[in-house]
Amino acid sequence: MIRETIITSCSPQGVVHIAPMGVHVLDDELLIMPFRPSTTLDNVLASRAAVINYTDDVRIFAGCLSGRRDWPLIQAERVPGQRLAETLAHAELELLRWEEDELRPKLYCRVVHEANHAPFRGFNRAQYAVLEAAILVSRLHMLPWDKIESELAYLRIGLDKTAGAKELEAWGWLMDMIEDFKHANPDKAVRT
Amino acid sequence: MIRETIITSCSPQGVVHIAPMGVHVLDDELLIMPFRPSTTLDNVLASRAAVINYTDDVRIFAGCLSGRRDWPLIQAERVPGQRLAETLAHAELELLRWEEDELRPKLYCRVVHEANHAPFRGFNRAQYAVLEAAILVSRLHMLPWDKIESELAYLRIGLDKTAGAKELEAWGWLMDMIEDFKHANPDKAVRT
Repeated sequence: MIRETIITSCSPQGVVHIAPMGVHVLDDELLIMPFRPSTTLDNVLASRAAVINYTDDVRIFAGCLSGRRDWPLIQAERVPGQRLAETLAHAELELLRWEEDELRPKLYCRVVHEANHAPFRGFNRAQYAVLEAAILVSRLHMLPWDKIESELAYLRIGLDKTAGAKELEAWGWLMDMIEDFKHANPDKAVRT
Repeated sequence: MIRETIITSCSPQGVVHIAPMGVHVLDDELLIMPFRPSTTLDNVLASRAAVINYTDDVRIFAGCLSGRRDWPLIQAERVPGQRLAETLAHAELELLRWEEDELRPKLYCRVVHEANHAPFRGFNRAQYAVLEAAILVSRLHMLPWDKIESELAYLRIGLDKTAGAKELEAWGWLMDMIEDFKHANPDKAVRT
């Protein structure tokens, strides 16, 4: 099972990096597989620690993609590093071992501390639409334009019906990125 | 903003009803709009209370659609009725007022008690795939077959990549319902 989370990691110089990342849930461990090159990978290998932020604020997912990485942080409790100040829950991880890979090294971790800060308040289809759109945006250069447009049209149905202000803001950032991509790649953006 | 939740409500005879329902989040109130006929509507009007269960167990959403309504319950704290025993959080509601409507009466409620039981552990694309598939299944008689199949094919991508055991079980229940519908409506199920 894969959970979509925000991982915060810390460089030897104390610089915190915030990145959206899927976490594979294993029996007793969590597996993180960052795509190279990856600041998260470098930081986790250097500090042997990471923090998983279980947030439902999709602006952070869309924000990290669109260059908005300045989210409030506070000190983690048991590992070197920081966590998002506003997150429903978080887990602090210790790196147990890792497997090298040219594309996606495997970081096997265990939870050394976990805290529950605020209640989950139900599924929101707009949050899911933003997450799926963020995945699309991260693959714009690989996907045919027709597929991008038809998936966005589908996702927009759930968005329009159920979004709050945060979801609309996040969606807007992603749509701006798509417009920018269209302008930078006019040949690709022509409808087939 | 609409949150997808499980609402538990209680009849004057003490029979608890479990139903998936979207909750509209207003400034200081929550709005529930059940489609008539609705056991939830009857129960909330009679008891002037409801419980919102904020669960991430999508089997309960798919289960209620497919006749599996026997989920463990425990007594609510401040209102007459019960809540899901296993839920990440729950809110107990008092009915403030309601507006009649032939299709969807509006139940305006306020939270009188809320509790956070277990941490949210991140977004899971498979959980949303199940939710979206459940919405499709509830509209099989209204939607063209091509649309159903193409949306399921899209949703299955996120499901296959990220599901755990609960999500696969819930998805299986929904796919069984679609097969049953196909057999009961052979004319509709022919591909166009």
